[in-house]
Order: sequence, then structure tokens, then C-alpha cells
Amino acid sequence: METTKPRILRLPQSPANANVDDAFIARLRQLMGDALSLSEADRQQHGRDESYHKPAPPDAVVYAANTDDVVAVVNLCASCGVPIIPYGTGTSLEGHVAALSGGVCIDLSRMDQIMDVNLADMDVRVQPGVTRKQLNSFLRDTGLFFPVDPGADASIGGMAATRASGTNAVRYGTMRENVLALSVVMADGRTIRTSSRARKSAAGYDLTRLFVGSEGTLGIITEITLRLHGIPEAMASAVCSFETMAGAVNTVIETIQNGVPVARVELLDEVQMDAVNQYSGLDYPVSPTLFFEFHGTQAGVLEQTKTVGSIVSENGGSDFAWATREEDRNKLWQARHDAYYAALALRPQSKGMATDVCVPLSRLADCILDTKLEIEKLGLLAPIVGHVGDGNFHLTLIFDPDDPIEFEKVNMLNEDMIMRALAMGGTCTGEHGVGHGKLKFMAAEHGDALSIMQDIKAALDPHNIMNPGKIL
Amino acid sequence: METTKPRILRLPQSPANANVDDAFIARLRQLMGDALSLSEADRQQHGRDESYHKPAPPDAVVYAANTDDVVAVVNLCASCGVPIIPYGTGTSLEGHVAALSGGVCIDLSRMDQIMDVNLADMDVRVQPGVTRKQLNSFLRDTGLFFPVDPGADASIGGMAATRASGTNAVRYGTMRENVLALSVVMADGRTIRTSSRARKSAAGYDLTRLFVGSEGTLGIITEITLRLHGIPEAMASAVCSFETMAGAVNTVIETIQNGVPVARVELLDEVQMDAVNQYSGLDYPVSPTLFFEFHGTQAGVLEQTKTVGSIVSENGGSDFAWATREEDRNKLWQARHDAYYAALALRPQSKGMATDVCVPLSRLADCILDTKLEIEKLGLLAPIVGHVGDGNFHLTLIFDPDDPIEFEKVNMLNEDMIMRALAMGGTCTGEHGVGHGKLKFMAAEHGDALSIMQDIKAALDPHNIMNPGKIL
Repeated sequence: METTKPRILRLPQSPANANVDDAFIARLRQLMGDALSLSEADRQQHGRDESYHKPAPPDAVVYAANTDDVVAVVNLCASCGVPIIPYGTGTSLEGHVAALSGGVCIDLSRMDQIMDVNLADMDVRVQPGVTRKQLNSFLRDTGLFFPVDPGADASIGGMAATRASGTNAVRYGTMRENVLALSVVMADGRTIRTSSRARKSAAGYDLTRLFVGSEGTLGIITEITLRLHGIPEAMASAVCSFETMAGAVNTVIETIQNGVPVARVELLDEVQMDAVNQYSGLDYPVSPTLFFEFHGTQAGVLEQTKTVGSIVSENGGSDFAWATREEDRNKLWQARHDAYYAALALRPQSKGMATDVCVPLSRLADCILDTKLEIEKLGLLAPIVGHVGDGNFHLTLIFDPDDPIEFEKVNMLNEDMIMRALAMGGTCTGEHGVGHGKLKFMAAEHGDALSIMQDIKAALDPHNIMNPGKIL
Repeated sequence: METTKPRILRLPQSPANANVDDAFIARLRQLMGDALSLSEADRQQHGRDESYHKPAPPDAVVYAANTDDVVAVVNLCASCGVPIIPYGTGTSLEGHVAALSGGVCIDLSRMDQIMDVNLADMDVRVQPGVTRKQLNSFLRDTGLFFPVDPGADASIGGMAATRASGTNAVRYGTMRENVLALSVVMADGRTIRTSSRARKSAAGYDLTRLFVGSEGTLGIITEITLRLHGIPEAMASAVCSFETMAGAVNTVIETIQNGVPVARVELLDEVQMDAVNQYSGLDYPVSPTLFFEFHGTQAGVLEQTKTVGSIVSENGGSDFAWATREEDRNKLWQARHDAYYAALALRPQSKGMATDVCVPLSRLADCILDTKLEIEKLGLLAPIVGHVGDGNFHLTLIFDPDDPIEFEKVNMLNEDMIMRALAMGGTCTGEHGVGHGKLKFMAAEHGDALSIMQDIKAALDPHNIMNPGKIL
């Protein structure tokens, strides 16, 4: 009599790491007790981010409660040659958390303490699991805020590790400019502090900036000291539409050249505007559109909007549609933040490949227009949004997961756009990071400098246990 | 009959490097021809900076005309194990150019081409020998300027190598924020480009920031791409004096907290003001004084000055003494820039030890006041000036070079001030750099992070030929 075989859920698997044997797991359990999970659900969840990339689950997940936990797990993994993958909220977009060679995922979400707020110095020290929205909600009554805003409510640790930015970067900078110092657990268990709370220093190598953007490949970030900014006295948001993409981009270039300290300037192409209208029940013109936000004193905001208003009209833009009340501003920016979901909703059952590049501003119109020509030629659906004050733009490539030919076209478009950006003096990613999704473009972008990155990686993680297979 | 011995000029010497023999010099001459100098005068000049540190001349000086020269000399030196010391204008302050183990000094002053100016992108690519004043003079008609202004007319290469800043850093940032990309010749002759012209990137390790501030110990900078800024529509400068140091410092803290985008805010203590008055024939009150500069639109500058004016009066400051005409502004800032010479002139035949620290703003008043108490206790003369918007201040310790006891006191004061700054969460140098002058404080400041710097140095310069004895 035959037994009925249990139905096996076919999920992508990473190769189980050979060094993760029963003895290893026993030692890991001794260290972490109930904070170790081997469950299928936990492992699957921790090998997956928000991207189209194939997930790859780790062999085990541990929930660190403090730096001592991280040090203990790193020491054990180092002694056994087991890979370590740090995990914040899993909202990355290039497969950053995939356990490509198995190993142990260290989930840092329980390390969520806000440790010191220094109002006079406008800085704060947090654990890596604090999310950006938690931090700003905590800061609400202090008159200060933390400006870096990637789409997702990401963890501060993950944002530091991926050098995240967002819509405010044109004025307030990215994580590169807003991290003052880090505590990091190295591959050999050493814990270091990369710098002090001083606003500037000329005392040796800039380790802070080395770890910001290192995606867990050099060490695990266990504390972050951030710069904070004063909540401006006045804010105003406005939308205006343009006949041409060039008109919109030239408006941005002239705004920056005029030294207008614009807080946000976002470009949405006509495809994205159509999606936003449908998704959010709005009726903006379906043409290239800029979303602005101005921060400052009452008089300063007024002056900025006057200056930008005249630049807009010189470039064939419409009058501003204003949103000065907080409620209206939130509605406007919610529509912008929902751009990705609006894009996906254009075609039900589809998936989206979210990709980004960044080029010098003078090449932005060319890069976008050439990319749009190729989208049309390939017959794809791919709305564009951009943090254009920085020369950074995003493409959401909509594809049918069951159509391999369309997926091939989508990949081709992504690759062509990246090579176009590189040829224009740009970078293969302005803010999403490398993970393993953009690994193949690193040599084209960096040339021999890639070998210097490899030398640094080999020096600080000689056994390649820190998030292997990412960046390098 | 005895011959008269020639009088030998007794100058400090570095140990001649054993690897610099006749055969090495012959090969160097083959590469560099007339651009090689072995003259005593050239060697002495290139081993000396503007500091009190003992000079140490190199065995040879070469004047590089281009990157190929640099690569050729580095390759030869690497093959023979000969140290290499890069040289810009020799205006550093912690012995950065001293050939502590002999070797070859590569003078980069002939590499003085401004290579590309991109007005739309507001960036410029220069060779390392261009000085900051040359660059700004070249940019005069473009409406753009480069803001980083250490006291001296330093070379851009040297400024990048030492992570220089200056009076404008509170608004425009230091070299850390203003270098977009570098070309670097590594210890093994590889030439790399650290990043693109894109304003931001998440594509791998931040090599640009690693080389900014590495003081020639990781490689030789041969090209620098810089961010430029728009010359503001309006500028105004003002001076106001305070009854107390705390009043002056609190004014700065509140100005920054209020989000006033002040372009410069410099603090001079009463000793420095006395020196400035005497040196420049001025009659400012002899009390703690702030020098402000405001940049913006006409209306914006007016608004900033109103806000700061009321903060000043709440903190017991005097009315502003205004300088709005360019001529008056230049005169005011010239007096500030001459502070060091004014300090030296307080006591003829004296020398000055110029040192700096940087602390969180909230600790600035304490750090300055405790330091002033110690100056008094030791009976020293030591005027204070500071880029106080960043928490950075400078001490010029006046001493008699023939009085070893005074020199000992001066060293003690410097050391105590640095340890005080570190205890307050600060750094041993905000902008002068480490060189070999502040080497001994690196362990106290960085702890285990110093070992990470050493690992990186060993990985990128395994034979320790790049400016040995500096930073690490």
C-alpha cells in the first residue's frame, strides 16, 4: 500500500551551508535560546525583500536583543565559517538579505531603542532596529526631525547600511551626510566606534563613510548617531505640469543653479501621472509633472516659490497647484509615495522591477528621453519617477511573471539604461544599492577601483562571512 | 698646514633612506630628467610645513608634470621600497610633509590645470596643484565659487588629502562634502577613479571619502572633482561683542538650532581681539566677539540678520557693527584671516603652536572656558579663534623657542585640551589633520577603530611606502 506523499511547498532555497550542522545549531541555541528560529516561515521571510529577486532563505534566524548577542553570534559564526546576513525590515530592492550561501540571519528589529537625544547638538543615537517613522514620531515634540525618507518605513540600521536617501536628499542630504558615527561589530568580533559626535574631524580615515553603504559586507551596525534638523517654520507644496520632459528637467536645473534651497522636487512622467490619477482618484494633467516642497521661514518660502514660479513659466510649465495645509500636503505626497503601487495597479497580476540610476543633472533629460524611447520600442510599460534635484530617477518595469520573453525585455531595458547612465558619467544606482541585483554592473562602473574595494573587503572580512555575494 | 673646514649649515635631517642609492637616483633621473632635484635648498623646503614641527627633508624631490610621472615614480619607489611623500603648497600644520624615513617627495604644484567646468552640473575637475584662490579667480565670471577656505592658499590636492575646511564649513561643508570624485595613484601603481560625477550613489564602498583625509598614506591624489556653489545674490558681514564667552557660544547654538543658514560664524576671544586690534589698527572692544557672514537673497539676508540680531541681544551681545560693501567685508575678514600673524606679533621673536579640536556644540563653552583657565594657570599667552558653528576652535600657543620650560608647558596645554575635547565627545583635530603631530592621540580617540585603519593601510600599502609615519 502506497502512502500519500505530503505536498511539498516549492519555495526557492539557498544551498544549506555545510558548516551549519547539528553541533553548530546546538551552540547557537545555547547562545540565543528562544531567540533562535529554524521555522520554515521565519527562514523564508528573512530571505526575501521587496524586490523581484528570487528569495534565498538562511539556515537559521536569530533575534538579537543587544550588541552582546551580535558579538556572540558573530564569534560563533566566525569560528565555524558560517555566513552572517543582517536584517532590518526587509524592504531593500536588490536582494540584499538573500542568504546566497545559507548561514545565519541576524534580525536586528528587537534592537529598537532610541538611546540619546541631544537637542542642543541636534543629534540622536539609536539602535539599528528603530525605523525612520518611529524616530520621527519620537521626535515630534522636540522641534527636530530626521529627513531621510526612502519609500518604505525602513530601519535606520538598514538605511545606513544601504546609504539610503529619498525625496528630501536634495536639501538635507542622504545617509552619507546624516550619519555622524556608527558602532560596528566586525567579522572577528571586535566592536568599534567609527567616530565621535563632533560635526567634523580630520583625525584619520573616514570609517563612518566606509561603513555607510557597505550593505553588511564589512560588519554589522549596532548603533547609529544621526544628525537631526529643525522643523521649518513654514512649508508649502505645489504641483505643476509641463508640455515637455525637457521643460520639466530644465526647471530643476535652473532652480538648483539659482541656489533655491528647495526641500523636495520630484518628477513624474505622463505614464506615472496616469497611474497616480487612477490609483488615487486624482485628475492631474497626464503630462510630465513636478512635485515641489519648500521649507523655510514664511517670507523665505514665499520668496522661493516666486523664484521657482517664474522659472517654471519660462520653461512652459503650468501654474502651481498649491497645497499649504498639512492635510493637503500629506495627500499630495501620499500620492507620490504610492507611485509604485499605482504603477503595479496599471496591470493586475503583474510584478514590478524597481530600478534606479543617477546622472549629472545636465544629462538627466537625455537619459530619461532615451530610456523612454527604448521603453516604447520594446513595447513595455514603465512609469518614471525621480528625485530629480539629485539627477536620480526610478523606473518601475511592469512585467508578467509568467511571460519569460517580457521578463527578458525588462532585463534588457534595465541593463541598457544602466549602461546609458554610466556612459553619461553617472552611477548604476543612486539609492537602491547593489545587493546581488546590480553586482554585474560594478566592474563597468568602477574599473580598477573595484579591486580596491575587494582589497578592503579581504582585509576586514578575510573569510568572507559577512553577507557574502553582495556588492563584490 | 691645516685647511679651513667649510662651515656646515646645521639643519635638521631625516635619516637618509638606505634604498636611495646611486643606482636608484640614476633611474629616477632617467624618468624625470630636469624635474628631479637633489639640491639642499629644495630638499629642505620640501620637508618643512608652516608648523613648529621639526622639518625632515626627503632624499630627493621630483616635480610631476602629469599622472604618468606620478605612476612612473611610484612604480620605481615601490620596486625599491622607497618612501613617497606628496607635496602641494607645504602649508599643513602637523608635519604632514616631513620625510620621517627619507625617500622621494613628489611635488604636485606643476599639475595645475583646471580641466573641466560643468556649469549646469556645478562641478569642476582640477589637477591637485591648483590652489583654492586660483580656482576661485578662474571661476569669477561664472557665477559659481568654491567655498572651502583654510587660512592658507592651499592646493586643492592637499586640501582633499587633509580633509580641510575653514570659515564657510558651517554652511557649505568641508572637503568631505565638497569632493565628488578623485583619481588616485595607488602604492602599486594602479590608477583608480573613486566615483562618478553623479551627486549621489549607492554603488559600493565610498572610496572618495576614504581617500579624503588620508594624508597621502593610501595613495596620491592626481585629480579632484569638486562641487561648486552659486555666488549668493546678497552678502553681509557683522561683528558683535559679548560680555561673556558663554553668551557668545549660546548665540551660536541658538542660531544653528533656529535653522538660520549662516555662512560664517567665527569666535575670537578677548586675547585674540586685542591682538587683532594691535595688528590691524582696529578698535574693537577687547572681549569675546563673533564675526558673522550671511549669504542669500536680499530679503533672506535681511531676515537672517533680524533673527540673529535678536538672539544676540538676548545673550548680552552688542549691536551689530555692519560691513555690507565688498571692500568693508574684505577688510573685516582679512583681520580674521590675519589672526595667526596678529597672535605671533603679540610677542616678537616668538613661535606659535597652532592646534585645533572640535567638540559637540553643547560642550563648546565648557571646553573653551576650561582651556582658558589652564592657559591662565600655566601663565601662557594663547589667543583663541574658532569656527564655532561646527564646534571647532583653534589655539595659537605663543612660545619662546629658546625656552624649553615654556615649550613643555605649551605641549602640556595642547595635550590637556585634546584629552578634554575627547572626554567631551569630540575629536583631537577638527581640520588640521594628524600628520605626525597628533599621532599620539589617535589611540585615545579611536580605540579599536584604529586597528581597522591599520588593517586598511596594510591592505592598500603593504610595504608602507606612502607617506610613512603619518596618521598611523
